[in-house]
Parts: sequence; C-alpha cells; structure tokens
Amino acid sequence: MTRQGRGHKGAGRAARPERAPDPGATLLWGAHSVEAALTNPRRKCRRLFATEAGFARVAAAASQNGVRVERVGDDELTRRLTKDAVHQGLLLEAEALPRAGLDEVVLDAPAGQRLVVVLDQVTDPHNLGAILRSSAGFGALAVVVQERHSPPLGGTVAKTASGALDRVPVVEVVNIARTLEELKEAGFQTLGFDSEAAYEIAQCDLTGDTALVMGAEGDGLRRLVRENCDRLIRLPTAPRLPSLNVSNATAVALYEATRQRRVAR
Amino acid sequence: MTRQGRGHKGAGRAARPERAPDPGATLLWGAHSVEAALTNPRRKCRRLFATEAGFARVAAAASQNGVRVERVGDDELTRRLTKDAVHQGLLLEAEALPRAGLDEVVLDAPAGQRLVVVLDQVTDPHNLGAILRSSAGFGALAVVVQERHSPPLGGTVAKTASGALDRVPVVEVVNIARTLEELKEAGFQTLGFDSEAAYEIAQCDLTGDTALVMGAEGDGLRRLVRENCDRLIRLPTAPRLPSLNVSNATAVALYEATRQRRVAR
Repeated sequence: MTRQGRGHKGAGRAARPERAPDPGATLLWGAHSVEAALTNPRRKCRRLFATEAGFARVAAAASQNGVRVERVGDDELTRRLTKDAVHQGLLLEAEALPRAGLDEVVLDAPAGQRLVVVLDQVTDPHNLGAILRSSAGFGALAVVVQERHSPPLGGTVAKTASGALDRVPVVEVVNIARTLEELKEAGFQTLGFDSEAAYEIAQCDLTGDTALVMGAEGDGLRRLVRENCDRLIRLPTAPRLPSLNVSNATAVALYEATRQRRVAR
Repeated sequence: MTRQGRGHKGAGRAARPERAPDPGATLLWGAHSVEAALTNPRRKCRRLFATEAGFARVAAAASQNGVRVERVGDDELTRRLTKDAVHQGLLLEAEALPRAGLDEVVLDAPAGQRLVVVLDQVTDPHNLGAILRSSAGFGALAVVVQERHSPPLGGTVAKTASGALDRVPVVEVVNIARTLEELKEAGFQTLGFDSEAAYEIAQCDLTGDTALVMGAEGDGLRRLVRENCDRLIRLPTAPRLPSLNVSNATAVALYEATRQRRVAR
C-alpha cells in the first residue's frame, strides 16, 4: 500500500492509524507474559490490545497499571503476530526494560548464596525463555547474556519465559570472559558445563556464591570463557550421547544448586 | 503447476520427478538426527538428500546403511523444508519407526530400576524432542505418549531430539490412565508432577521402578491421569511462580532419579 493510499484510508477511519504497531516497541503476548509486564513497576506499558476473553484474564493488572486498552477481535491479534503465536487474546505494546547492571543485581547482592546463570551465545529464543523461567523458579539473581549474541528480549523469549522476563533481570554484557573475572573477584565460583568434563555436578559444592556457565548449542563454551571457569563439570548423562538441550541442562544445574542449599540448611 | 505441465517437464528432465518428496515419508534433517536414523537398524531409510558438506558429516553411517544418496545444493534443502529448519546440509526421507509396545520395551524389561516417562498430552514438538533427548541422556526405557495428542514423530521432534528419537522408544497408547494401571500392576510407582502438590521430589524414593508422569503445558494432568498416580509431587521451585517448562521439569525429574540411584548403589 502506498503512503498516499494509507493516508486516505486513515482519514476515512480514524481508529486505524492509532492501531498501527509501533516498530520500536517491545511486543509481548500470552496471559502470563502480559500480566507479568503489567505488574512490573520497571516496565513501561503503552497499549494493550485485548479480546474480551483475553482482557478478563488480566483485568485487575491492567486497571492497576493504567495502560490504555484497545478491544480487538481474535483475528486482528493473529494478523499482528505470526500465525503460530499463542496470544491468548492479549498483545501488549511496551517499552524495553531498562538495562540491568551486573553490580546492581548481582555483585551488590548479599554474599553467601548468590546464584547466577551465565549464557555464552545461546541464541535460540525458546531456550533463553525457558532458562529465564527456570531461573525464576529456582531463585537465580540474574541471567547474564552477551549483548551481541542474544535474541531480542520480548516476543518469543517473553512468551516462553511465561512471565519470567519481567521477574528475573537479564544482564547484557559486552564480554562474557571479562564478566566471569568480575564474578570471581566478587567471590563467585564459576562452573562451566561441558559434556566431556571430568567432574560430575554432584561432586561440586554449589552452596556458596555460584555462577553456572552454559555454552551454546552445538559449539559449547568458547575457549576464553572456558579458561575463566574455575572448573568444568558435566551432568551424569550416558557417555557417547549428545548432551542435553541447553535449557534442560540449565534447569538441572539450578535444581542441583537448590537441592544442595536445602540439605545444607 | 498443472499435472500436464509437470508431466511434460518430467519427460524432459528425468531426474526431477524422482526427487519429488514422498508425502507419506518421515522427513529427518540435521546431522545428529540423520546419523542416528542411518545407524538405527529399526529405521528404514529411503533417500538421503545431502550437500557436499552435509554428506561428509555422515558418510560412514550412510555407506554402512546403503541408503540411496542424492547430492543437492543448500538452497534445494531449504526449499524442501521450512525456512527456519537448521538442516546442516542433510535431509533424510525415511519410514516411520515400527510401533514400540509397552510390553516389549517397558513391562518385559528386568524389574528393579526401570525408569519411564509418561506424557499426558504434551503437544509441542520442541518439548517432546527435548524430553526424548533427556530421556536418552538419563537412561529412561521409553517415553509413553497418547496416540491422539502427540506431535508427529519426525521433523521438528527428531531435530530437537538430536538423535534421541532413534535411540529411545516412543510408546503410543490409546489411554494414558489405563497405561498407568498396567504400569502399577507391573510394580511401578507412578508419580505425577503438579506444581501445587504437597510433596517435594526429594522426599520421594525414586530408586525403584518409577514412572514420571508429566502434564501438558497450561492444563497440567487430567483428572483420570492424576487419580492413577500413586503420589503427586512438585519440584522445589518458588511458590506463586508459573511452573517450569515441561521439558525442563522432566529433565530435572530424570536427573533426580539418576542421582538417587547413584547414591543408593
């Protein structure tokens, strides 16, 4: 459609242009993801597009937030998103979260039982989303990612995170190896996961300040990242089989840390 | 293109029609998934479409299998699959695996430490694939699914399983609740996962014959399935947060079973 054609149509139907999606906005869909954003004081929400049924699921949160609500049909949401997006009648146009700093959310937290997940170039949005979800469930302080090799923090990541993107800070850093140095200086042990490692996770004490460092699907940890890990460890999986999916491996690592901390208490 | 047009073109270029995909075939792509199929004696492989680089990754397996190989360009593979499919230069046209029976792979296995995963309507192919991968890694005998509510056993499931679809039998049953009864009669304890359950996983003895019963994303376990579980248990996640992704929860449950069995040894 030409610019002219759009202007003409807009003049005839005033509501249309207002509903056009803002290309700079972070789009969030699905009930858990939208509700978590609406109740996150750090998240600026602009407009909520909702069906009757969708709105009913988040009415309290939307009203508390004061976000502008636009009622739409189910098919309009489907048109605004990809065909497979399970929007559950809800699409929120929001701003990206303010950047979280390593100091603020990790280094300045009370020492002793800090737990953080560090991802070395995990680029699949479903994996990052699931890792955020497990990190929320098992109480990790943050998920650290490399700024330039991480999927956009919205959309599929948010949907897969099922609300956890607005609960667990994502710290974007320039250099993962440097971040591991900072974590070590702050008293963290840094444990890199590698299916070929000599030590198994249960041989490690995970009760103190711990960074769980997970590599990319396929390539694993890069050399400099690996060298900045205090120890490389593996999960007790059968030898000669491909390693676990990275989000599954992270969930197991977070679980084992949680389990050990409970036993130690 | 019309039928006539196709016939005409085919007559002129003999190789073309032979390369047309067979709509009844199971398509497998990606290096791990294709290599596992080629080396699985139960898998009948028809044709392997491979780029130079792709073929180099599975040359030994392809030669041992005797599958017919057709060299293609990267773009032809992309055209045959969806745009996002990470085919790694390999596309295998194969037959579906012969159906695995519960008796054969689970009930008739030596009693004592049998471990099986039962999925109640887990429909997402990425989740089923990741669960197969973890089941292979942690030595589960089989993954039981409901025939009518399970994604096709190929394609995305196979790719996400990273070879595990050809290593861990998938038992398709008509009725999950009935299957749980059969498992109990055979001496299994059946443990259903529910984020609201009173017991935590670490309070359970998972060293004997055990079925881990996982519910669908969103809805959880259905009533009849739940009633056929000996006990409902939860993972030690923070209260009031959405539960873990089902593949992550399954990986944690399989890990805990493996851990307890090693300690008990």
